[in-house]
Amino acid sequence: MTDAAPRRRGRPARSDADTGPGARERIMEAARTEFAERGYDKTSVRGIAKVAGVDPALVHHYFGTKEEVFGAAIEVSFEPALVIPTLLTGGTDGIGERLARYFIGVWENPVSRAPLLAIVRSALTNDAAAAMLRKFVLRRLLERIAVELDVPDPTLRAELAASHMIGIALLRYVIKAEPLASVETEEIVRLVAPTLQRYLTES
Amino acid sequence: MTDAAPRRRGRPARSDADTGPGARERIMEAARTEFAERGYDKTSVRGIAKVAGVDPALVHHYFGTKEEVFGAAIEVSFEPALVIPTLLTGGTDGIGERLARYFIGVWENPVSRAPLLAIVRSALTNDAAAAMLRKFVLRRLLERIAVELDVPDPTLRAELAASHMIGIALLRYVIKAEPLASVETEEIVRLVAPTLQRYLTES
Repeated sequence: MTDAAPRRRGRPARSDADTGPGARERIMEAARTEFAERGYDKTSVRGIAKVAGVDPALVHHYFGTKEEVFGAAIEVSFEPALVIPTLLTGGTDGIGERLARYFIGVWENPVSRAPLLAIVRSALTNDAAAAMLRKFVLRRLLERIAVELDVPDPTLRAELAASHMIGIALLRYVIKAEPLASVETEEIVRLVAPTLQRYLTES
Repeated sequence: MTDAAPRRRGRPARSDADTGPGARERIMEAARTEFAERGYDKTSVRGIAKVAGVDPALVHHYFGTKEEVFGAAIEVSFEPALVIPTLLTGGTDGIGERLARYFIGVWENPVSRAPLLAIVRSALTNDAAAAMLRKFVLRRLLERIAVELDVPDPTLRAELAASHMIGIALLRYVIKAEPLASVETEEIVRLVAPTLQRYLTES
């Protein structure tokens, strides 16, 4: 009996499900769920593979180490390739408001919120997770925004903007501080947009 | 042999050290260290008592439950009774700059930073710790500032200011995002002060 399925690096597949269509997406979905529910420390490539119904070797094949799986999960949450062009449409005019609305939107959506919380929690308690957050969120998202800015220290400015949105997310969704936890998203956007606009455009 | 030491509620003291001068301060110091090193979940009243060299009953006597010990440790870190009058000296003129400098100062000091990090980390992973953070930081610190403000939704404004400072602390001291992790504190104060000033004074 010959093996007709395409062979990949790593151990042979256990079943068709391993290499069938959608395996990559199932792995990513499983990774986001596992990191969100268990946190970074307690999540393993083996556990992700089990939830996805694939061989652990396939997880390594598609994404690499656990750190790299985590990095890919971060990237999926922020979708910088889709987001940055939209944020930068129309240049820096109104960028504060668009950025505030985008971040609040990502956090308001329960599907993206759970993995984001896992990322932030993990990064606060684990150095490897902190390094992945630096690499993915900061390098891939903030620095891409920073290159478009005409201010001194654009990366510092982008970090100040990000720090504010992360802090709001923590107080609103995790600590649940009132009234911030209950106020309408548009009220937050209205109050925060001028702050982000100043950081990103005024020297 | 008679027991000359004053008797307190709870189990009898094991030694003079229990009730001697400074026992309360030793307990608080031990609590801050334990919460900082072990996190909220893994810290126990028994463990705090051991580090302080006192009977666990004395910890309960002075501070109450573990949640209440944690609350007291938060309060010590922020020292609202000392801080708020200073912050509010001169009214709201320049309050953004004073608040930014105060927060950065608390975080820059390694002695106060460790327990603060423990508080934030604990609050992100434990509901009881989150409740204590709400109660102590928000009610006792932010609301006392808020009553002095002449803006709509003063508590929301104080929370937005706090969210920014917490986010900066996380990116600077925990995630260690560059350049924010290395920039001079005065540069942060310069950039952030107008944001806090706007939240706390402009409608």
